[in-house]
Amino acid sequence: MAGAKLLTGNAVVGQSGGPTAVINQSLVGVVEGVRSGLMATGNVQKIFGMRHGVNGLTKGDLVDLSEVPQDRLERIANTPSAALGSSRDKPDKDYCAKILKACEQHNIRYFFYAGGNDSSDTCRIVNELARSSGYELRCFHVPKTVDNDLPVNDHTPGFPSAARFVATAFAADNLDNRSLPGVKINVIMGRHAGFLTAASALARTVCGKDDDGPHLIYVPEVAFDTDQFIADVEKIYSKLGRCQIAVSEGIQDAKGEAIGAKLIKNAQTDSHGNVQLSGSGALGDQLSDLIKSKIKGKDGKPPRVRADTFGYLQRCWPDASVVDKQEAREAGRVAARAAAAGELDGSIALIRAPGTPYRCEYKRIELTDVAAKTKHMPKEFLKGTNDVSQAFIDYVKPLVGALPVFERL
Amino acid sequence: MAGAKLLTGNAVVGQSGGPTAVINQSLVGVVEGVRSGLMATGNVQKIFGMRHGVNGLTKGDLVDLSEVPQDRLERIANTPSAALGSSRDKPDKDYCAKILKACEQHNIRYFFYAGGNDSSDTCRIVNELARSSGYELRCFHVPKTVDNDLPVNDHTPGFPSAARFVATAFAADNLDNRSLPGVKINVIMGRHAGFLTAASALARTVCGKDDDGPHLIYVPEVAFDTDQFIADVEKIYSKLGRCQIAVSEGIQDAKGEAIGAKLIKNAQTDSHGNVQLSGSGALGDQLSDLIKSKIKGKDGKPPRVRADTFGYLQRCWPDASVVDKQEAREAGRVAARAAAAGELDGSIALIRAPGTPYRCEYKRIELTDVAAKTKHMPKEFLKGTNDVSQAFIDYVKPLVGALPVFERL
Repeated sequence: MAGAKLLTGNAVVGQSGGPTAVINQSLVGVVEGVRSGLMATGNVQKIFGMRHGVNGLTKGDLVDLSEVPQDRLERIANTPSAALGSSRDKPDKDYCAKILKACEQHNIRYFFYAGGNDSSDTCRIVNELARSSGYELRCFHVPKTVDNDLPVNDHTPGFPSAARFVATAFAADNLDNRSLPGVKINVIMGRHAGFLTAASALARTVCGKDDDGPHLIYVPEVAFDTDQFIADVEKIYSKLGRCQIAVSEGIQDAKGEAIGAKLIKNAQTDSHGNVQLSGSGALGDQLSDLIKSKIKGKDGKPPRVRADTFGYLQRCWPDASVVDKQEAREAGRVAARAAAAGELDGSIALIRAPGTPYRCEYKRIELTDVAAKTKHMPKEFLKGTNDVSQAFIDYVKPLVGALPVFERL
Repeated sequence: MAGAKLLTGNAVVGQSGGPTAVINQSLVGVVEGVRSGLMATGNVQKIFGMRHGVNGLTKGDLVDLSEVPQDRLERIANTPSAALGSSRDKPDKDYCAKILKACEQHNIRYFFYAGGNDSSDTCRIVNELARSSGYELRCFHVPKTVDNDLPVNDHTPGFPSAARFVATAFAADNLDNRSLPGVKINVIMGRHAGFLTAASALARTVCGKDDDGPHLIYVPEVAFDTDQFIADVEKIYSKLGRCQIAVSEGIQDAKGEAIGAKLIKNAQTDSHGNVQLSGSGALGDQLSDLIKSKIKGKDGKPPRVRADTFGYLQRCWPDASVVDKQEAREAGRVAARAAAAGELDGSIALIRAPGTPYRCEYKRIELTDVAAKTKHMPKEFLKGTNDVSQAFIDYVKPLVGALPVFERL
């Protein structure tokens, strides 16, 4: 559809869903792309930011980004979390009517939205309702999610930085566990997809010794069986005298029920129907208690067992992957360029170029290709029921960047 | 006692208690100090490392550090956690007899031990039993603890790096909470002392805006009252629509009972009688549930509430404070120099030199000055019942080093 007649008016950009360490790179990428494209050609007069996504848009809570100086944009790009504020609202028909009214009021003709599965669905809903109501609006989605679960994309902005945090954390925690041996469980974000939990395996490359953790990795793609879990831990613990375990917050039983969600007292649910998994230590604590009750060491006593839930630091830690920063920025710019090329709508997908060294390409795809869809870890990334494959390590390594160098005695 | 006749034999160094990001700096400092001092003068032939503290010593599990090349020592110094392995054993009389037997067997005359309150007590016990049994042994303690609760010391190696992690985490998490507003609880390490929890206040200096978190800080030094807590949170939440809270894992009720310890199912206890506080999300989850049940937003619904427990990453995160690295290294060297100067025993205390810029001095003190004793936050570091003072900020800032620069929109 490239080459359609360009509209004239204003542009708006929003951030949605769970923030990441690089979602502000995408925001700044869109602003730069619009400035050097649609603003330079005179099609766009102003570029606004929505405070807290579509929620701010409906309330006219907009911030004018047209003339923010470049040095300030650069500092914003390098600040984690969503500088405009985020939202988990799912617009229904009435909500969408308000969005379109706000667009009319502010003469908005270009709509950019950075987010994950649910946010791309919001973008799709707005796009379709604008079209059916006859309001000309060009809607573009910029991918973002630490879960790395958007279809078509090789990976999504936000994931490499979160994976960098998880790998660094496991490498350091592995040495802590080696110092004071015992069983250590670390619970990782990831509602339906295990990519982020799997990234813990990169920690093994930091010291490069055979006995380095994580020793066991549990992802939502493999049904979690309590008895098997105990047997797995017992095997490692009896061999090494310690065991470091990566568990996804989204692990499911054989029926596909999330184990963690059932454990959180008064768990809260967002408007997309997602039940709270993060922001609670319940899953780690339950698994910890299970090990204490089922496993005995050589002295007949339960091992020292500790559980940490890495929580929100995974998505906001300010040591982003360099590749991630560049790609998140570029994805925003590419969305603005797609609009300037006369595309009517779309999502920007990150595609890995074949061969080495690692290189990423950007491709416009349909909003319906990603909206509300979830990608899971492919079988070739898994190894047995409690580990990941070398293929996964090869996949994730170039995204994360150089990890710290550790030395053992 | 400086100037006593030097003994001739070997030296041993151990690491004990919870590891830190810089305890290997102290290990390397001792090795360097012994090499350039007692080994250069011919008083020490070999310097051994104990695997897992006194536990390894009793078993003869020693590693010869005499000739480890400097570049490898440097890499070890910059690796977090205890490279020799750590221990929480508390030696009784029989255990000490084994330690002395091992010392005799390996002709050990100099004993260096890096650790916190409990480990300095281990050092004191070994020292006193050696003396009473007539075995000539020079025992030196090198301070270490993220809790920052050793008496006499202005601060202790390990604390500045953990404080750096906590401040960075709060600054980033504050933006996450600003993106998706709600109540966010972060539980911080610290059994009896609130220094590390208090360090969260440094996060306010990162963006420098009035409404940046943490908005409430609860330390063990102030009795925790549930009703007051709810009132505090309600006040902030109704004003800002969000609230970021720092809670020490060691908060106590008016009777001095630790609130967290009672919540952990099958909590484990170490040989020093410390009941498990870390490695569980129970305290954060309980406070979270309390807020959900007691506080309502403008829409009549409970606020979005999340709790993270920062856990072991606080003490092992590989982005140590530069000041901390230098001081931990120097504390190890000073201990070795004290031995070479003919001191019979002692602990090395870090004393802040008066005036600015910040400067640290090192002083030999008696083992009994620190052994099994705990320093608390002084009154002038507290502000009301839920905050810290500017005096505390001025105290902690030079220790932590430059924090990331964030920009808000």
